[in-house]
Amino acid sequence: MIVEERLRELGLVLPAQLQVPPDVRLPFAPVRIVGDRAYVSGHGPQAPDGTISGPFGKVGAEVSLQEAQGAARLVGLSILASLQRTLGDLDRVTAWARVFGMVATAPGFDRMPAVINGFSDLVLELYGEAGAHARSAVGVASLPFGIPVEIEAEVVIRA
Amino acid sequence: MIVEERLRELGLVLPAQLQVPPDVRLPFAPVRIVGDRAYVSGHGPQAPDGTISGPFGKVGAEVSLQEAQGAARLVGLSILASLQRTLGDLDRVTAWARVFGMVATAPGFDRMPAVINGFSDLVLELYGEAGAHARSAVGVASLPFGIPVEIEAEVVIRA
Amino acid sequence: MIVEERLRELGLVLPAQLQVPPDVRLPFAPVRIVGDRAYVSGHGPQAPDGTISGPFGKVGAEVSLQEAQGAARLVGLSILASLQRTLGDLDRVTAWARVFGMVATAPGFDRMPAVINGFSDLVLELYGEAGAHARSAVGVASLPFGIPVEIEAEVVIRA
Repeated sequence: MIVEERLRELGLVLPAQLQVPPDVRLPFAPVRIVGDRAYVSGHGPQAPDGTISGPFGKVGAEVSLQEAQGAARLVGLSILASLQRTLGDLDRVTAWARVFGMVATAPGFDRMPAVINGFSDLVLELYGEAGAHARSAVGVASLPFGIPVEIEAEVVIRA
Repeated sequence: MIVEERLRELGLVLPAQLQVPPDVRLPFAPVRIVGDRAYVSGHGPQAPDGTISGPFGKVGAEVSLQEAQGAARLVGLSILASLQRTLGDLDRVTAWARVFGMVATAPGFDRMPAVINGFSDLVLELYGEAGAHARSAVGVASLPFGIPVEIEAEVVIRA
Repeated sequence: MIVEERLRELGLVLPAQLQVPPDVRLPFAPVRIVGDRAYVSGHGPQAPDGTISGPFGKVGAEVSLQEAQGAARLVGLSILASLQRTLGDLDRVTAWARVFGMVATAPGFDRMPAVINGFSDLVLELYGEAGAHARSAVGVASLPFGIPVEIEAEVVIRA
């Protein structure tokens, strides 16, 4: 389990399963497996206990670029946690294919690529060449729960 | 034709082919089939005659949460209609893979997941386990024709 | 090399590799190949020398509909250039599957489909039936570098 070992070396801890407020219902899978593809639902930053993590607000206003990069890195840990729960072993991800990064932006902010680098760098640190991916990083009007960053992805897996 | 039968039991009618204003040109396929995948273009809510259905505007302003949920359900019927026209039989969809839900939001509205549940619940009602899907639900700045909800998807099909 | 020949007939020149400002780091692949799929990262309009091309701003405000359509066509050339650099030969693209068009919109502008037609028309001109695609065209809050149009895609390739 190479990726899990690297996580330990880096001192990174994957969050527990997502905890949402009691009035929120999310009738979909965090990760949907079809054949050799795993489709990863939009994830946000989570605290280690699985609750949604701040900072909250728009990047360029309430949330700074540096905070947003940290949030994107946390989104990476959230996604890895969901992949691990679904696949059992993160080494089953043999290639990252597509990463779609969404940043809730305040007017005038357009450094979405720098924000989503917090995610891409983590994936490349952990997966090396297998972590290479196509990517978009765009500014959206709003994200659920007031989170500043949300990322969805598609990865290739082995049985 | 199990899904068509369930539609009848639920009293649901699929809309006719999309009718757009005469000055609008949409040079792409509602559904694009490649191998065992059907890529579903972004769809909006339609009336039974195929015209674009209101309510129009931003969710959280002109359009209420409850109206938006109804619109998301109508988007589901639009997508099913396109899949039926392309595939002939809705049972050929063996798995829903990815659902990308976009909500045109007014400032301060962030309950996009509750909106897109109107779509997810319909797919699960009709397809059961095969309807499980990965999903994102995000707020965008604007959608074509002033519609409040647009959804694109990827599904797995059998020959 | 049929597509390259058509490009020459149409007098179209593909831009050089993307040049970004020195403080910008893009740690991802313009095109990621996995099996018979090429995932195309979000691309913007480029000048022939590879630099990011104007006009800059929001469509419906600083950028007109007609200018935005031209920008979408330039995005098409950027994507074709990346595909050519990755695949060697544009005829290796056997089917366009999914096109996701994002338009940075000013309040009140909702003609995103007309904008993204600048891209779709180019692909259809060059690829004919193989250029058919599923598509969404939506309004986002902001795009990197102030570009008015960004497009990501998924295409099918042969070895």
